Amino acid sequence: MPEFLHLLTSSEALDRLLGAIPDSSRTGVERIPTVEALNRVLSEPVTAPHPLPPFARSTHDGYAVRAEDTFGASPSLPAYLKLIGEIHMGVPADLVVGPNQSALIHTGGMIPDGADAVVMIEDTQMIRDGEIEVLKPVAVGQHVLMEGEDVKTGETVLEAGTLIRAQEIGGMLALGVTDVNVACRPRVGILSTGDEIVSPNEEAQVGQIRDINTHTLSALVSQAGGEPVARGIIPDRYDALYEATERAHAEDDIVVITAGSSVSARDITVDVLGACGEPGVLVHGIAIKPGKPTILAVADGVPMIGLPGNPVSALVVAGLFVGPLIRSLLGMERSTLVPKVSAQMSINVASEAGREDYLPVRLHITEDELMAEPIFGRSNLIFTLVRADGLVRIPPEATGLSAGTVVEVRLF
Amino acid sequence: MPEFLHLLTSSEALDRLLGAIPDSSRTGVERIPTVEALNRVLSEPVTAPHPLPPFARSTHDGYAVRAEDTFGASPSLPAYLKLIGEIHMGVPADLVVGPNQSALIHTGGMIPDGADAVVMIEDTQMIRDGEIEVLKPVAVGQHVLMEGEDVKTGETVLEAGTLIRAQEIGGMLALGVTDVNVACRPRVGILSTGDEIVSPNEEAQVGQIRDINTHTLSALVSQAGGEPVARGIIPDRYDALYEATERAHAEDDIVVITAGSSVSARDITVDVLGACGEPGVLVHGIAIKPGKPTILAVADGVPMIGLPGNPVSALVVAGLFVGPLIRSLLGMERSTLVPKVSAQMSINVASEAGREDYLPVRLHITEDELMAEPIFGRSNLIFTLVRADGLVRIPPEATGLSAGTVVEVRLF
Repeated sequence: MPEFLHLLTSSEALDRLLGAIPDSSRTGVERIPTVEALNRVLSEPVTAPHPLPPFARSTHDGYAVRAEDTFGASPSLPAYLKLIGEIHMGVPADLVVGPNQSALIHTGGMIPDGADAVVMIEDTQMIRDGEIEVLKPVAVGQHVLMEGEDVKTGETVLEAGTLIRAQEIGGMLALGVTDVNVACRPRVGILSTGDEIVSPNEEAQVGQIRDINTHTLSALVSQAGGEPVARGIIPDRYDALYEATERAHAEDDIVVITAGSSVSARDITVDVLGACGEPGVLVHGIAIKPGKPTILAVADGVPMIGLPGNPVSALVVAGLFVGPLIRSLLGMERSTLVPKVSAQMSINVASEAGREDYLPVRLHITEDELMAEPIFGRSNLIFTLVRADGLVRIPPEATGLSAGTVVEVRLF
Repeated sequence: MPEFLHLLTSSEALDRLLGAIPDSSRTGVERIPTVEALNRVLSEPVTAPHPLPPFARSTHDGYAVRAEDTFGASPSLPAYLKLIGEIHMGVPADLVVGPNQSALIHTGGMIPDGADAVVMIEDTQMIRDGEIEVLKPVAVGQHVLMEGEDVKTGETVLEAGTLIRAQEIGGMLALGVTDVNVACRPRVGILSTGDEIVSPNEEAQVGQIRDINTHTLSALVSQAGGEPVARGIIPDRYDALYEATERAHAEDDIVVITAGSSVSARDITVDVLGACGEPGVLVHGIAIKPGKPTILAVADGVPMIGLPGNPVSALVVAGLFVGPLIRSLLGMERSTLVPKVSAQMSINVASEAGREDYLPVRLHITEDELMAEPIFGRSNLIFTLVRADGLVRIPPEATGLSAGTVVEVRLF
């Protein structure tokens, strides 16, 4: 326990990091077609150039009428209305409904002048050509979508910082907004260090290990809305790492280094991160497992993260920090919503008080329960995460979780 | 209530649809670089060509030793070991540790021949050049990752049908698997019908409405792993719709039609879906709101869906059916895991028994609760969903939800 006591929690550490990034570090703006804007973030508000619906529309198949002409109508005492025509879809209504008149209208059709309600077709009878019986009264506005009922002209329909989902694309296109200004994807420079690391495309010799972190982190960055920039495998030497980091610092919006595994390699990383600019290293060590040796820095406005070299630690910690960082540079609100599924712990798990644990678990569906089974790999090798469906967070105040405890699993 | 009694639930309807799709409808296979395989689905298992780790590695900075030489060691009675050299990272260990010998090793370094454990550096003292004191004994294998501890040669590490996440990319690259066979993305032909519908790029005239559904559904298809194919805006006439649908049926893996809003337009859609092949229409109408007029069909192996034309209904129903359909054609297991957040209903909401409701809600974070506030838009216009963070499902057996009830919100 003592080794974690003087360390920040992950949430405190994130606050410190985000708090040290000036607004000027936000990424620039680019204009793109709305249909290609899925998962991008608006850089300016969108206002409605016209109302939605743009004209009053029928919500049912039936007859456009003047509501007052139907008052008191019933099957035994119907209202008789003259049928003066049909409202065709997609063209302006070219008739005016006068007293005791009606016009055939389809769902979505434009309410013609004069009419103020729609009688559903099932509440009418055609008695002879040119005349209908209305069997049920309608109120003014009934079965009518009013012009501007969804959106009024000039209304701010989307705020800057909005993540564009399917429905935002639909909403903008409904308003004829076919191009949109979005925040440029933050470039995230990813450096992998270690004298033993080789590219996956190379034949690994005895004593060598293929680079995993560049690619797992690239995938995470892409999913979080950033643009990964692979900056290569760097030897565990100060000058080599400094040179590569400085280049990333100059060209990218965020720099992520996965440190070599040894203490001396981690020392080099913290020295390099401290040398790139002001204020430098903000956090060195966090009260989480995995991920204790994480380093957070800001250098002349550029956020920089030193992740542990272990692939599981690197990916878990990147999920906690790189995602929020990307969203911050995109101008999004900090979200506290993490989608989860509830499950029961299958066995007891111990945890140190004062330390936040992220435990990989696999989910099993039993008869009527979802069970979360911890994946133990003391070595935190990559297939620990391949076997896992998500992570269970054990909060710092807990000393473990008992079998049967209902936990929330953050799915990968 | 009676109008829903004879209808299938959404889950029964999905079962019927998926059950009618032959295995031969699965999409083909393409070979792509592993680094580009994020969110794709493996079409064949991956087996390990070599063990992981590929050689025994140290988990700490320290000294590689023969464990038996440290037995009984303590600060008052240290074991004295000759230091015969250093294990360099990334090259084969070029020395053999004999009795009463040790070699300096770094985290991740290769365990040299002769050694079977690592003493952590903090449990040693350097007394003079070429000799160390060991202050604490180690057991055989201590602080060592064994060769094959993560994965053994020939082990199936990933099954066919696996969704490739960041960690699967990492795991494959660790094994040198740099190319991979994945299922081709299902082509999803999307037809939007309605005489009043125009492309968002056109100026909408009075009486016209811009097409939303093609684009919201395209976004949903992309996110679900499919390839959207916009098949245009089709007039509400049988011959025009049949021709366009037949072309999509011939060229695409899935066909989705958003029906015109009127009853006659929906009748045309069901006729067209019935005419494309065997067995034809399987489900016409589902006990859900929104989405009751949904049509599910399979025509000569091609699944086809007729969605309501209303943009909210179309998007909600597509989330229930199009996603699982894409995953099925990709060869994935049917997943029952839907990530959610828990929240309290802010007000009472009524629902008909026998009908499953999907209620758009906006989430508000109050002092210590997450509140789900229903977005009521009787008209189900697109900005209803823009204002919503997710959907609350009200099950068929419920007649509503009381304020304060804890519900699970499926985030969009």
